[in-house]
Amino acid sequence: MADPGWLGACQSLKGVVLDMCGVLYDSGEGGGVAIPGSVEAVRKLKASDLQLRFCTNETQATREKFVAKLQRMGFDISVSEVFSPAPAAVAVLKERGLRPHLLVYDDLLPEFDSVNKTDPNCVVIADAAENFSYHNLNEAFRVLIGLEKPVLFSLGQGRYYKETDGLKLDVGVYMKALEYACDLEAEVIGKPSPMFFQAVLDDMGIRPQEALMIGDDLVNDVGGAQRCGMKGVQVRTGKYRPSDERHPTVTADGTVDNLAQAVDMILKQRGH
Amino acid sequence: MADPGWLGACQSLKGVVLDMCGVLYDSGEGGGVAIPGSVEAVRKLKASDLQLRFCTNETQATREKFVAKLQRMGFDISVSEVFSPAPAAVAVLKERGLRPHLLVYDDLLPEFDSVNKTDPNCVVIADAAENFSYHNLNEAFRVLIGLEKPVLFSLGQGRYYKETDGLKLDVGVYMKALEYACDLEAEVIGKPSPMFFQAVLDDMGIRPQEALMIGDDLVNDVGGAQRCGMKGVQVRTGKYRPSDERHPTVTADGTVDNLAQAVDMILKQRGH
Repeated sequence: MADPGWLGACQSLKGVVLDMCGVLYDSGEGGGVAIPGSVEAVRKLKASDLQLRFCTNETQATREKFVAKLQRMGFDISVSEVFSPAPAAVAVLKERGLRPHLLVYDDLLPEFDSVNKTDPNCVVIADAAENFSYHNLNEAFRVLIGLEKPVLFSLGQGRYYKETDGLKLDVGVYMKALEYACDLEAEVIGKPSPMFFQAVLDDMGIRPQEALMIGDDLVNDVGGAQRCGMKGVQVRTGKYRPSDERHPTVTADGTVDNLAQAVDMILKQRGH
Repeated sequence: MADPGWLGACQSLKGVVLDMCGVLYDSGEGGGVAIPGSVEAVRKLKASDLQLRFCTNETQATREKFVAKLQRMGFDISVSEVFSPAPAAVAVLKERGLRPHLLVYDDLLPEFDSVNKTDPNCVVIADAAENFSYHNLNEAFRVLIGLEKPVLFSLGQGRYYKETDGLKLDVGVYMKALEYACDLEAEVIGKPSPMFFQAVLDDMGIRPQEALMIGDDLVNDVGGAQRCGMKGVQVRTGKYRPSDERHPTVTADGTVDNLAQAVDMILKQRGH
């Protein structure tokens, strides 16, 4: 069932990085529900000698609101353990002296409170849902095309996701639209950007080969982590599809039924 | 000023194809205004022994409404002389037994009256302006992703255009968005598709080397016509920009100030 390769590496493991939606919980009405066994699996990891971080491309709420939702589901999790694209974007904007025009979900706006947004010299897009209107897209485009050197940041590059009322186009689709309109290449902040994974490793103070990523998204979680030198294990929950196990370019280091199984295997291998 | 190459070819010329917006008229409030000299230039071509057709990527109105607007500006022009993407799309849909889901401008819908649109097995997009809403894009996406073999037609592939109240994203941008979302390549109907130019040549019953395209869009008018074996001349009106004259991949066979100058040069060369 599991490739011994990744389990063998568990001996030298120092940290685990968990994707959130599709690994910890399934999204849906009322914010979603915990995936069976995941609350307990997080508790076990926290009780172990492994470091633990959470890494999400979630951009429809501030980290505070998002973490509060997970806590209500029973997860032992705090804001400082969660890496999401918006704070990473804020750091990049400040470092490069950029003032963003924002096309994001309303609930994400507070993440950018500390950023100067006057006279914008770049555009930041995230999954904006209903805010991806004809008017707002034209507006973001006009900011970009009016710049001598247009800079576009995209918080993630997902194609689509599923909500209870059907499939919805994700931020990557609008990123491609603006890339074509302005003949530029966006800078992606979030998974699968190596810079994003590296920030998580830096926070734990460990090397890539000492870290394991567990996610449901083969390309963005597993492939992204692997390109960074980490091991990547896919769970058969969330957006997992059987065809992922014969993907043309990304092969997970292991595939497990769910987070609970992955954690039990890791801890058993380490002699707990 | 003009490259003698294209003028030399005028001796064997049998037909002229004119782009419309930016060559005949400038769009704007109230439908736009004729470009000085263009009404008279069309009259001169019609009085000559050359065949004349009009070729546009206009998709915000039926050909009937569009031609009526040009007639009000003073142009001697009839519907049967105008080639636009919607009727070409209708022909393709019928030939291939396809039933479209339409994401187009409301005023274009009557062009598709004769097409069966129940239980759609393809998607057709055109410049839909305000109809490019988050809701409508998700809807078009769901039709595509639900098909075993998704087929997307895009009426043109423009990046953006200018209206009196600013730049607007064009259909090509939304085509790229849906291409990325569904991992497919759209079929473009309209300029610069060779099939589209060929239909105009077929209608005149002449060979590509006997035809000259005059347009303001270097890539879609001039480059498209050239790829089809026609000569292509660019006018310095409409969306012409000085940088077009040093474009990395497309070089016009000639560049003239406006349609009036082009027509005078052609007719003089032919001894009129």
